[in-house]
Amino acid sequence: MKKIKVNTASNNYPVYIGSNIFNDLPEFIRKYRLPKRVFVILDKNVERIHGSYIKKIINEFAVKKCFVVLPASERIKSFKTLLQIFTRLYEEKFGRDTLLIAIGGGTIGDVAGFAASTYMRGIPLLQIPTTLLSAVDSSIGGKTGINFNEAKNLIGTFYHPALVLIDTNFLKSLPPNELISGFGEIIKYSYLTDGDLYSTLLSEYKLLLRKDLNFLEKIIYESVKIKSAVVLKDEHEKTGLRKILNFGHTFAHAFESNSAYKLAHGKAVIAGIISAFFLSSEICLISEKQLNYMLELPLKFKSSIRLNNLHEKELLRLMEYDKKNREGKIKFVLIKDFGEILIDIDADRKLIYNALKRTKKILV
Amino acid sequence: MKKIKVNTASNNYPVYIGSNIFNDLPEFIRKYRLPKRVFVILDKNVERIHGSYIKKIINEFAVKKCFVVLPASERIKSFKTLLQIFTRLYEEKFGRDTLLIAIGGGTIGDVAGFAASTYMRGIPLLQIPTTLLSAVDSSIGGKTGINFNEAKNLIGTFYHPALVLIDTNFLKSLPPNELISGFGEIIKYSYLTDGDLYSTLLSEYKLLLRKDLNFLEKIIYESVKIKSAVVLKDEHEKTGLRKILNFGHTFAHAFESNSAYKLAHGKAVIAGIISAFFLSSEICLISEKQLNYMLELPLKFKSSIRLNNLHEKELLRLMEYDKKNREGKIKFVLIKDFGEILIDIDADRKLIYNALKRTKKILV
Repeated sequence: MKKIKVNTASNNYPVYIGSNIFNDLPEFIRKYRLPKRVFVILDKNVERIHGSYIKKIINEFAVKKCFVVLPASERIKSFKTLLQIFTRLYEEKFGRDTLLIAIGGGTIGDVAGFAASTYMRGIPLLQIPTTLLSAVDSSIGGKTGINFNEAKNLIGTFYHPALVLIDTNFLKSLPPNELISGFGEIIKYSYLTDGDLYSTLLSEYKLLLRKDLNFLEKIIYESVKIKSAVVLKDEHEKTGLRKILNFGHTFAHAFESNSAYKLAHGKAVIAGIISAFFLSSEICLISEKQLNYMLELPLKFKSSIRLNNLHEKELLRLMEYDKKNREGKIKFVLIKDFGEILIDIDADRKLIYNALKRTKKILV
Repeated sequence: MKKIKVNTASNNYPVYIGSNIFNDLPEFIRKYRLPKRVFVILDKNVERIHGSYIKKIINEFAVKKCFVVLPASERIKSFKTLLQIFTRLYEEKFGRDTLLIAIGGGTIGDVAGFAASTYMRGIPLLQIPTTLLSAVDSSIGGKTGINFNEAKNLIGTFYHPALVLIDTNFLKSLPPNELISGFGEIIKYSYLTDGDLYSTLLSEYKLLLRKDLNFLEKIIYESVKIKSAVVLKDEHEKTGLRKILNFGHTFAHAFESNSAYKLAHGKAVIAGIISAFFLSSEICLISEKQLNYMLELPLKFKSSIRLNNLHEKELLRLMEYDKKNREGKIKFVLIKDFGEILIDIDADRKLIYNALKRTKKILV
């Protein structure tokens, strides 16, 4: 078991990573003095596979409990789901002394986090990510949110969990597509520091689909370390540093939206990284040689990513809604070298088109 | 013009109080480097009386603007209003560099504050309270919220404005009922410190309905000072200190809800204070003599407060939903003496009934 302490201006919280640590939930509750009245928002898939085990562990300590089961889908990040959650909380008279436990992937964590941050102006939140993607991304950093029309996470809050438990055992039941999706964000992290993590991933990436628990624990640990270090320095995206985490995401969000959210987020990120590299190359930030080396790893996964209905004009329209925009212009996060990420970059429409066309050539 | 700096753990912001200070809005925007893309949520009554003046001043500096006019009513603190606001923000492509300006009473400020705190995970907020109640209460302290079913502010956030401007000139058009409602919260503040403010209010309260601008500026200043000092010590209601601001409010919220929000908040607070005094007396916290002196001021306004359909059982049910409840019990904020407020007090149902009956005798 590994532990990382995430420090933020507003509070600190621990992240535990290990196999079978969900077993110890009752002890974690005692250790961190979390409420024993629990409201659990549970991923439907996780419920199907691990439901009775999860309920058994929660029954060991809970004095009051309620389970809401939701399908893992971008569609649940909606006002409708919030109303469903708030209605249950309200009708079953849950007070401020309630622990909201989110067990599932990123969509569950995002909507549950938003509910926790706004119910009675905030109740304690325990994140238990059960996908590789949510383990390394959305469960860390305190972003919550729901979608609005075509805009991802247009409505949300910054709200930190009291505790994050990443039980790698839950990852064992993930299909290959889910693992690749999570790996997309991990690849992204590898560009944000020196090239060491990248070269490790490049030589060991085959362990991913073999679900090697040691490999998973290691890459989750490295990713959480990178993400939490960035978040520490720019909790609310004020200084701009946190924007480096959005490398590839301006494109990725448009790809996701364009696919009506059928394309998994992490896969969209891999595609988005590829587009961001092409755009970085179009504006001459990066040499051809560097480009080829840095594309080597994401391109290992090209056969599992298919972008359909990719119309450049429509994608540009979608990007205009992106939260990173300022004064009506699309702003990109681009790359010069390992650890050298540039934020708030304007790009000519023509060059964006070119980057999209080069992406299309590979991924459509 | 008076200025108070409100310090909180997360940030500091200034509150300006004075006559005609709205005139200087363009300078305030420059001074505090606030965005010039503005989304204004404007009280319908204020729009009717001051609309063209307000638009003229905003036109002086705004590079992009949008006005949403809402009636001042508890009913607008709803998901429906939020959807209306978010839709306009989204459709008109407002980005993070947007200043949300709330001009109106507490209901406008609460729902606008919630929208500002959650649109793109938070955009800058300028509060311009135009009622006495919102000037001394909801515009300070960073609470935002909407109602849910019968529960007031069940959904909300803690989010501080970048700036608060209290232009006493806007208060001149308020009807007597609105002034009395605001005075209810000011009376409440007078119990939270030594008896000086209380004795001033007791001897000068007649200046209120004469709309004496100096008197208004003075009592707003004193109230904001008291409230911000309390908020500073307990921003997120964690240590419990902030709960003293809820003196009278457990009863008040039930009175409001019971009246289907026809009873003004500040008037409900006066009634709630009276009930809290009776409950404090029922559990022998306060002597008969002290009780009589402390009730003298609120009782000056008894003729303007009428509680209808006051059924003790129904009120108790409503109080059970109150956010201050822990483990299913109703918790009260009660009083021993000036500046001696007790929080989280349990009370026997019988004694709560008695306090309600004594209130009923006076106010029904």
